Amino acid sequence: MTEKEPEGNGRVLTTRRIEGLADGIFAFAMTLLILSLGFPGDSTGNLLTIILNSWHMFYNWAISFTLLAVFWIIHHIQGHVIERTDTAHVWINIIMLMFVTLVPFTTDLAIDYSDQMAAELVFGINMFLLGVCFCANWTYATWGRRLVDKNLTHASIVAGIRRNAVLPLIAIIAMVVVLFVPRYGLYTYLLIPVILSFPWMRRT
Amino acid sequence: MTEKEPEGNGRVLTTRRIEGLADGIFAFAMTLLILSLGFPGDSTGNLLTIILNSWHMFYNWAISFTLLAVFWIIHHIQGHVIERTDTAHVWINIIMLMFVTLVPFTTDLAIDYSDQMAAELVFGINMFLLGVCFCANWTYATWGRRLVDKNLTHASIVAGIRRNAVLPLIAIIAMVVVLFVPRYGLYTYLLIPVILSFPWMRRT
Amino acid sequence: MTEKEPEGNGRVLTTRRIEGLADGIFAFAMTLLILSLGFPGDSTGNLLTIILNSWHMFYNWAISFTLLAVFWIIHHIQGHVIERTDTAHVWINIIMLMFVTLVPFTTDLAIDYSDQMAAELVFGINMFLLGVCFCANWTYATWGRRLVDKNLTHASIVAGIRRNAVLPLIAIIAMVVVLFVPRYGLYTYLLIPVILSFPWMRRT
Amino acid sequence: MTEKEPEGNGRVLTTRRIEGLADGIFAFAMTLLILSLGFPGDSTGNLLTIILNSWHMFYNWAISFTLLAVFWIIHHIQGHVIERTDTAHVWINIIMLMFVTLVPFTTDLAIDYSDQMAAELVFGINMFLLGVCFCANWTYATWGRRLVDKNLTHASIVAGIRRNAVLPLIAIIAMVVVLFVPRYGLYTYLLIPVILSFPWMRRT
Repeated sequence: MTEKEPEGNGRVLTTRRIEGLADGIFAFAMTLLILSLGFPGDSTGNLLTIILNSWHMFYNWAISFTLLAVFWIIHHIQGHVIERTDTAHVWINIIMLMFVTLVPFTTDLAIDYSDQMAAELVFGINMFLLGVCFCANWTYATWGRRLVDKNLTHASIVAGIRRNAVLPLIAIIAMVVVLFVPRYGLYTYLLIPVILSFPWMRRT
Repeated sequence: MTEKEPEGNGRVLTTRRIEGLADGIFAFAMTLLILSLGFPGDSTGNLLTIILNSWHMFYNWAISFTLLAVFWIIHHIQGHVIERTDTAHVWINIIMLMFVTLVPFTTDLAIDYSDQMAAELVFGINMFLLGVCFCANWTYATWGRRLVDKNLTHASIVAGIRRNAVLPLIAIIAMVVVLFVPRYGLYTYLLIPVILSFPWMRRT
Repeated sequence: MTEKEPEGNGRVLTTRRIEGLADGIFAFAMTLLILSLGFPGDSTGNLLTIILNSWHMFYNWAISFTLLAVFWIIHHIQGHVIERTDTAHVWINIIMLMFVTLVPFTTDLAIDYSDQMAAELVFGINMFLLGVCFCANWTYATWGRRLVDKNLTHASIVAGIRRNAVLPLIAIIAMVVVLFVPRYGLYTYLLIPVILSFPWMRRT
Repeated sequence: MTEKEPEGNGRVLTTRRIEGLADGIFAFAMTLLILSLGFPGDSTGNLLTIILNSWHMFYNWAISFTLLAVFWIIHHIQGHVIERTDTAHVWINIIMLMFVTLVPFTTDLAIDYSDQMAAELVFGINMFLLGVCFCANWTYATWGRRLVDKNLTHASIVAGIRRNAVLPLIAIIAMVVVLFVPRYGLYTYLLIPVILSFPWMRRT
């Protein structure tokens, strides 16, 4: 009985359950992205011409898929360290998942309104808020080692902050780039997997 | 052999299996909600204007997502206490999941027919029936401690009834509010997570 | 090494994996059914009138959801007894899942073409073939106790055949009923959960 | 601590997690294929005539479903042997899953643009790249027994290469066949399950 005390008086929700929901939502959102792909009209034009003229669509789709994959990986790395959960932590995760399910929609916008800078800014805001959720998740869980192992080193906590901060920072940079280089700003997001693979980002 | 007797003579369905199906359906319904978002027409208008004029759509989507998350949390809290299952319990859960999959549809109605009070009433009926299913699930399982630990305290059972009763009650209140304050009645549902987070609602 | 021999020389696929895929596909198909619901046109008519005129749509959706739930339950009951798998068993399951994913489509047809007898017959053929797959799955697995416990009683095997035979039989009856009572033939399928809940169908 | 060293200094992602994501995406992609089925227009024509005229659509759908099932089986067979993971392996899998989610889209193209050879070539390229990902996955994991059991026999590794090479090879053959026998080239893909079921392909 004293064991379960920190989880909220019989209202027990384990991190494993949250991870199950998150895995399902990530898998569905990544698959649903495919609905963003679609050709206008009446199936009569020359298909190769249509595809070549739609490279922008495929590249938006591929970037969104890659970003969701990166977020999924980070979510699992965080989940490996976070051992407990509480109500606030559950809600941080739910809001995070809400922005995950929003990605197919904002990707759609970036494709359908590719001639408007606003579409890429909306996509950027989605990514920025998703990144903020990840930072909040890590900070909340490690603050005073609230939900993590009491022996987790300070260095590990700082390394986690550094890794998570990359997400909203790159989103801000991408939004600035979009102002000057419309239609190509989304390439900026590819910096996220690149930076995260640097050895000094991966040190514990 | 005598162990399995209560589960129906060789027809064994475990609570773990039902939870697996429920997790899949919840995750999928929460992701499918995104299909409710969509702009009419021809991708030519100014995107920022379109988005600002569609705040109602985003707020309906966010409320539905939040409510499904709340239902998912309650489902898991119930699932933690309910240890066995039988045919009636399985069917209560299946009807519950049917109303879960209905949420993306009634959310869609509330968005597309936002000028008609009926749309919010239909959404309310969906939420009300979902809440009734949760009450039925808990009452059926705890009646005579049918599917729960024989040592579960009376206080815990009553606390569970109190928590589950919040769902259909708020749905009724929201439907009444809609009659007087159309378009804003859905805010009422946000009382559900608020009330459930009160300390006296969380006591076992 | 000798243990794994029957599963095909290092090509090991466990029943747990097949159940995982099946659970995912059942959950998605049950949720995707909601896409069958939809009102024609321009969101201007009176919503209550539209809903009342569409009762046929909701009742088709509810029947399909219920049938998929029944099939999911039977699949799990079978999965509880079937302990091993082999290539033929995997393919019977894959073809079965193919007909499961077809249900949202044939439900859609039954709704969109509700004035044509053919739509209900196509739905019936889908259910019939699904039932045949279940019979095949059980017969293949229990033939010579191929994939089940060597000590499974003959009575249990026969009871399983009896239970599975209900599915295609009712589908045939429903198709005949449709010829004479168009638009109401689908009610016949509700006999499936009713018959399966009879005590003499549940004896091992 | 020394145990976890090879998985990347605290950034731990297990093969079980990747399999979970893959299972979700496979199940979802296989179910989403159903959205490729759809009849044009206004629900007024004779349904039987429409269905008979659409046999091409159903056969494309069935082939795509079967191929995804084959890929899912091979993915699990590989996953059974691959015991560890690293960053490159994760990304090979993510790119593989990207092509899996692309299948409903390219199937759609093959159906909507069935009068253009290009549609079947695009489908072929999708299958070819998917096959290449599987070859890459196996080769990377077994190279110097990087991610597999150190005692895995050379014969097993070669057998795996042989099995995986079937996928892109058949895709190339199918693309050549399409050039000469348009509309029927997709049948070639059925060679994949046929060849893989040959006894000499299944030897370890």
